[in-house]
Amino acid sequence: MRLLLIGFGVVGQSLAKLLLSRSADLYRLYGVNPRVVACVDSHGSAVSSTGLDLEKLLEAKRSLGTVGAYNRSARMHELIELIERADAEIVIELTPTNLDTGEPGTSNIVASMKSGKHVITVNKGPLALAFPSLIELANYNDVKLRFSGTVGGGTPILEFAKRSLKGDDILSFRGILNGTTNYILSKMEQGFDFNAAFSDARLNGYAEASSLLDIDGFDAAAKLVIMANWIMDMKVTIKDVCISGISDVELSDVRRASKLGKAIKLIGKCEDGRLDVKPMELSYTDPICVNGTLNAVTFRSQHSGEHTIIGQGAGGVPTASAVLRDLIDIRNALLL
Amino acid sequence: MRLLLIGFGVVGQSLAKLLLSRSADLYRLYGVNPRVVACVDSHGSAVSSTGLDLEKLLEAKRSLGTVGAYNRSARMHELIELIERADAEIVIELTPTNLDTGEPGTSNIVASMKSGKHVITVNKGPLALAFPSLIELANYNDVKLRFSGTVGGGTPILEFAKRSLKGDDILSFRGILNGTTNYILSKMEQGFDFNAAFSDARLNGYAEASSLLDIDGFDAAAKLVIMANWIMDMKVTIKDVCISGISDVELSDVRRASKLGKAIKLIGKCEDGRLDVKPMELSYTDPICVNGTLNAVTFRSQHSGEHTIIGQGAGGVPTASAVLRDLIDIRNALLL
Repeated sequence: MRLLLIGFGVVGQSLAKLLLSRSADLYRLYGVNPRVVACVDSHGSAVSSTGLDLEKLLEAKRSLGTVGAYNRSARMHELIELIERADAEIVIELTPTNLDTGEPGTSNIVASMKSGKHVITVNKGPLALAFPSLIELANYNDVKLRFSGTVGGGTPILEFAKRSLKGDDILSFRGILNGTTNYILSKMEQGFDFNAAFSDARLNGYAEASSLLDIDGFDAAAKLVIMANWIMDMKVTIKDVCISGISDVELSDVRRASKLGKAIKLIGKCEDGRLDVKPMELSYTDPICVNGTLNAVTFRSQHSGEHTIIGQGAGGVPTASAVLRDLIDIRNALLL
Repeated sequence: MRLLLIGFGVVGQSLAKLLLSRSADLYRLYGVNPRVVACVDSHGSAVSSTGLDLEKLLEAKRSLGTVGAYNRSARMHELIELIERADAEIVIELTPTNLDTGEPGTSNIVASMKSGKHVITVNKGPLALAFPSLIELANYNDVKLRFSGTVGGGTPILEFAKRSLKGDDILSFRGILNGTTNYILSKMEQGFDFNAAFSDARLNGYAEASSLLDIDGFDAAAKLVIMANWIMDMKVTIKDVCISGISDVELSDVRRASKLGKAIKLIGKCEDGRLDVKPMELSYTDPICVNGTLNAVTFRSQHSGEHTIIGQGAGGVPTASAVLRDLIDIRNALLL
């Protein structure tokens, strides 16, 4: 399978390392033999029809800051043209999430699918803003669109709901979908006020450039939209979510709840056709009442009861392993 | 698909009701059209090559205590002969678990597979005592053996580990695998001593005939064996598990742990090739530290971190829905 990688940040580099360390495994266990025939980052591109040397690609990024340094004689490529012309079956779209415009992810994904390429993305922007039309475009062009890494990082939340509960109907679900806000709220439980907890999250690398997306609940809302479309067959976008973030949560609220055996958590909820993201009180004994950066979702099913899945919701290697899962999934789907 | 049902207790009757209420669904969504052509309980049998009327079958059981009352003119069938001769593709084996002899489950399963029938079972006995040889027999006869309902009731623990984590390696796992003991230990947390907690469990219907299997850790060990074989590719039986139950757990132990922010739980653990079932202290913040009759398992994977799944580990309808899941799974496997 020939891959075109767009974006070579933490997830992209983790993926390259996983492909290097696991190539024998992937072929033996799943019949997957991936070759990266092109890789693009914000400063340049590297192309090789026989497959890029991933060690050399990582070294170029490390030493000179861009994959463009892989082969200095290469000409500059216009990205959309590269996508359309690349001799690749699968485009792996790893550009950063933008929940206002969805770009550059949306243009990349659309160009890929229109030129007959399957897409794996970890970018929540395009899906949060236009899930229904992207799926329609994928179907129209008879290609697969996969996005395991957008929800739960390496924890297979989407896969669990879609596959493991087959034969049952999911009636509703709710969960902690954002690790940064959960970290901040967990710190507030320990007595930090909001600003101190936020600083601590920054210090530990959990809140970065996009921290407003976290705090204001937009990241959780984007994930909720992806889940509602994929799991519940709803046709919704982020505009359909009623969102409130955690910036108004006071230390006194957290303390009052704590006295009643409860914690305040930022919960994304899909119930009776309604989508909400808001701070809610959860009993300490509720299985989704987890701390630190953990994510947790409870699915309520019609026949088999409630099922909860908990895991780290982020991280380069876990998210890259979700991309691998999608790769295997697409390969299996093509064999059917 | 023609089914032979062996055992018509809580799970069997729940399955009959699910088949009645969901037949249109099952056909529309999964292409499955199940007909029960024979049903056997401890007092009699009912057979119909065109498919039993499940309403009438449930009524016979309800009013006269046995499916033998379905058709009074039917002759008595010798069970093994019935299995061998039945014009059924799938045998659903729902007899009670016996961890000493594995019977009557083992004989039923062996006869089914030898006569070319796929088997779905919720009976832990045969699998705990002879998993490796039963899988070998299934492969030799080119039939499927499925057992989702043996671990986690309706919670798809086996499916999750086997499917949702594909592309990753599970290194170890540990969890609360028995709801009865978890209920008792949760009650002890609330200040009941062991005997009072046990009586309370009985009163609430959580500890019945097989309660010694629960208390002494054998039920958890049986599930651990099934998971170790299926998920970790180990070739083990219940003899390979180092087992200690909860009857020696004192209220004072529970109180001492509680002061340190910990709970005592009966944990099944598979790590470094070792299988253990024993009471262990867990931090209250550990995701598997759940209360009541809940089950919970954490899988540690090589690339995507730790994943926890939590759900009700038992119940007629949930377990019957696990049987349905297996039915769909076998149908899909046959189509490949």
